[in-house]
Amino acid sequence: MKLIVDANIPAAERCFGDFGSLTRVPGREINAEHVKDADALIVRSITQVNAALLAESPVRFVGTCTIGTDHIDHAVLAEQGIGFASAPGCNAEAVVDYVLSSLLTLAERDGWSLLTRTVGVVGVGNVGSRLLARLTALGIKTLACDPPRAEQEGEQGFESLDTLIDRCDILCLHTPLVAQGPHATYQLLDAQRINELAPGTVLLNAGRGDCVDGLALRSRLTGKGDIAVVLDVWESEPEIDASLRDLVALATPHIAGHSLDGKLRGTWMIQQSLASHLGLASQVAFADICPPPALASLHLQDALPVEDALRVCMRAVYDVRRDHDSLQRQVLKQGVRQGFDTCRANYPLRREFATLGITLSGGALALESILRGAGFNILTM
Amino acid sequence: MKLIVDANIPAAERCFGDFGSLTRVPGREINAEHVKDADALIVRSITQVNAALLAESPVRFVGTCTIGTDHIDHAVLAEQGIGFASAPGCNAEAVVDYVLSSLLTLAERDGWSLLTRTVGVVGVGNVGSRLLARLTALGIKTLACDPPRAEQEGEQGFESLDTLIDRCDILCLHTPLVAQGPHATYQLLDAQRINELAPGTVLLNAGRGDCVDGLALRSRLTGKGDIAVVLDVWESEPEIDASLRDLVALATPHIAGHSLDGKLRGTWMIQQSLASHLGLASQVAFADICPPPALASLHLQDALPVEDALRVCMRAVYDVRRDHDSLQRQVLKQGVRQGFDTCRANYPLRREFATLGITLSGGALALESILRGAGFNILTM
Ligand SMILES: NC(=O)c1ccc[n+]([C@@H]2O[C@H](COP(=O)([O-])OP(=O)(O)OC[C@H]3O[C@@H](n4cnc5c(N)ncnc54)[C@H](O)[C@@H]3O)[C@@H](O)[C@H]2O)c1
Ligand SMILES: NC(=O)c1ccc[n+]([C@@H]2O[C@H](COP(=O)([O-])OP(=O)(O)OC[C@H]3O[C@@H](n4cnc5c(N)ncnc54)[C@H](O)[C@@H]3O)[C@@H](O)[C@H]2O)c1
Repeated sequence: MKLIVDANIPAAERCFGDFGSLTRVPGREINAEHVKDADALIVRSITQVNAALLAESPVRFVGTCTIGTDHIDHAVLAEQGIGFASAPGCNAEAVVDYVLSSLLTLAERDGWSLLTRTVGVVGVGNVGSRLLARLTALGIKTLACDPPRAEQEGEQGFESLDTLIDRCDILCLHTPLVAQGPHATYQLLDAQRINELAPGTVLLNAGRGDCVDGLALRSRLTGKGDIAVVLDVWESEPEIDASLRDLVALATPHIAGHSLDGKLRGTWMIQQSLASHLGLASQVAFADICPPPALASLHLQDALPVEDALRVCMRAVYDVRRDHDSLQRQVLKQGVRQGFDTCRANYPLRREFATLGITLSGGALALESILRGAGFNILTM
Repeated sequence: MKLIVDANIPAAERCFGDFGSLTRVPGREINAEHVKDADALIVRSITQVNAALLAESPVRFVGTCTIGTDHIDHAVLAEQGIGFASAPGCNAEAVVDYVLSSLLTLAERDGWSLLTRTVGVVGVGNVGSRLLARLTALGIKTLACDPPRAEQEGEQGFESLDTLIDRCDILCLHTPLVAQGPHATYQLLDAQRINELAPGTVLLNAGRGDCVDGLALRSRLTGKGDIAVVLDVWESEPEIDASLRDLVALATPHIAGHSLDGKLRGTWMIQQSLASHLGLASQVAFADICPPPALASLHLQDALPVEDALRVCMRAVYDVRRDHDSLQRQVLKQGVRQGFDTCRANYPLRREFATLGITLSGGALALESILRGAGFNILTM
């Protein structure tokens, strides 16, 4: 078979080479001419997959190595009976790394302990559920809010957003943008809810910028200034509110999920989907395409305070302050809009916590469950 | 023999137990009564060692486990023929760790590379010479300024301060306070020299606060604001200039040398001196009293950018931002004076770079000389 594959998709040869002949085309340039005799099309979000592209094409399968599918015209695919796959959750673990790195950084900076806080997670999908799993494994008290899921699966284990606001020290938003309906998320955190946040609350948004009323947040920060905010997503990216960026404790340019592992997992998931679409057994394991990390392992041999141990291990893999500082620098240099885009375009290589092996001995053996809970790979010596 | 030993000196039993019977007394309380039948006195800087203390005492040896000796009345010791030792350079490696951690943090934050800069070191004593050694081992161009040494040893290898100001991107001050004379260091960096610093210069002071004119520095930072400053030492500590603290890139409370290793090395050096004073061979090796670090080692198995590798290894051991953030927090809570002292009093455990073992394989083997140069302990696998 003949596959057209976005030239920027990593590990594409290794993943799709066995299926047939690959033609790599820059995502922005893929057009009807390219796909006029193709059997499968593998894209990222930069390629609009619509009638104009597919009308004259024999393509039987479209895969996008991304979690988003806004660039896909599902109706056209359905009409033409074309198989489809995206890669939901491929970078969810990276977002969880980002959240933990951010919270432990704020905890150190402001002198509090993460492990004794109550964390509320709003939106319990691919990201939120993995975040809850890691927080729970760390022994942290959590509350979950996901009205669509509560409606489908029953209220058990879910609370209302207002209960979370009432009872949590930390609120993490991982909701998609839903413009309307009973569970709309547009300005889910509106002025009223922002004002109800207790002093000292930490608010983190790594879902969608529009889920928070930015103006109201800015007022709370310039006014009482008694909450700490971490924002990875913003209203009207990349033209974000410059003064809001100045006010938040950690400001990053929508990179929470930008790990190499996440990208490769996206490619790999589409490979799996294409294999199953073709009724073939996949010959590629994720480990085959995922390169070993530069930092293989570290060895702890004696007791140290639990959150210090977490910080040492996390920062060896990913320190969110790098991304915060780099946005700060680029914005000073190029202005908000261009600075935001430059940081995303030049995003440095990042690995996930799970790539770090940790060996423990002596007093450090007591850290095993907590480090495992944080997502690291505990090796036996 | 009978030894009076400050109760706060770590590893004292292990170091001095073999010499005779130890009496531990809080340093602030040590008085003539305690030493009236003692043979040796081991102190820190909190104990004033003067005629009032020693007049009626048979003490034959005084040791201070510190680099400073301002608390010692040398005339009295000379008069009474009492042997003396201090611990010069005991924490010099810790100061070098601090300098490297600070410079690599600024480099990342502001987007430049340390390895291509020229670093000027002012004051080439215990600290300065070790800093030069590590910078050179890292392949960094350096210039050294130490007029007293140049006078004694010849000009070779030394430059004038104005040459350093002219030719260096980074200026590190490691001079003691010398109030007067041809080589006085009081306001060595005065208004004129501060204004001569080229835009983009990094100025770091970990010597003595009075070596820099703080008001002039503040004007440069509020005015052109085109240099980056790291201050560990300040005029009139602990009542430091609050607005200067706000303006510098990294502000720490005179803790550059505060490693556990440095403290233990101080005790151990006095142990060595006492043994040689008594004509005995010391039975104690430094390794005997220095506990293994909690973080034993890390393993790099693939190439990564050199300065990223340095940052990963350094921050796993010591990240100066912890101390900067903690001063910031305590100053907000308690004001400048009390905040400064609280940070020093509650200083967390810190180890030196040399305690970290690093194993290398694959593409990371190329990092061997640079990581060794930075002070880490390269282990063979
Ligand atoms: N910052 C990043 O780099 C990054 C990375 C990955 C995902 N994301 C974003 O995070 C969001 C979540 O991603 P995901 O993969 O977990 O999506 P998902 O679709 O798997 O999960 C979203 C969850 O939100 C729930 N939800 C919907 N409306 C809600 C409401 N009103 N209140 C509470 N919960 C509600 C849904 O029921 C669902 O369980 C998405 O918007 C995605 O674009 C951002
Ligand atoms: N920040 C900290 O935690 C920390 C830790 C250790 C030392 N220190 C301070 O750092 C300074 C240096 O410590 P050290 O142990 O290297 O001292 P040292 O006495 O070994 O060296 C000081 C050097 O400065 C030189 N010097 C004197 N006047 C000079 C001048 N006008 N210009 C240039 N050089 C001059 C001397 O010749 C000497 O070589 C001291 O003031 C010490 O108190 C600070």
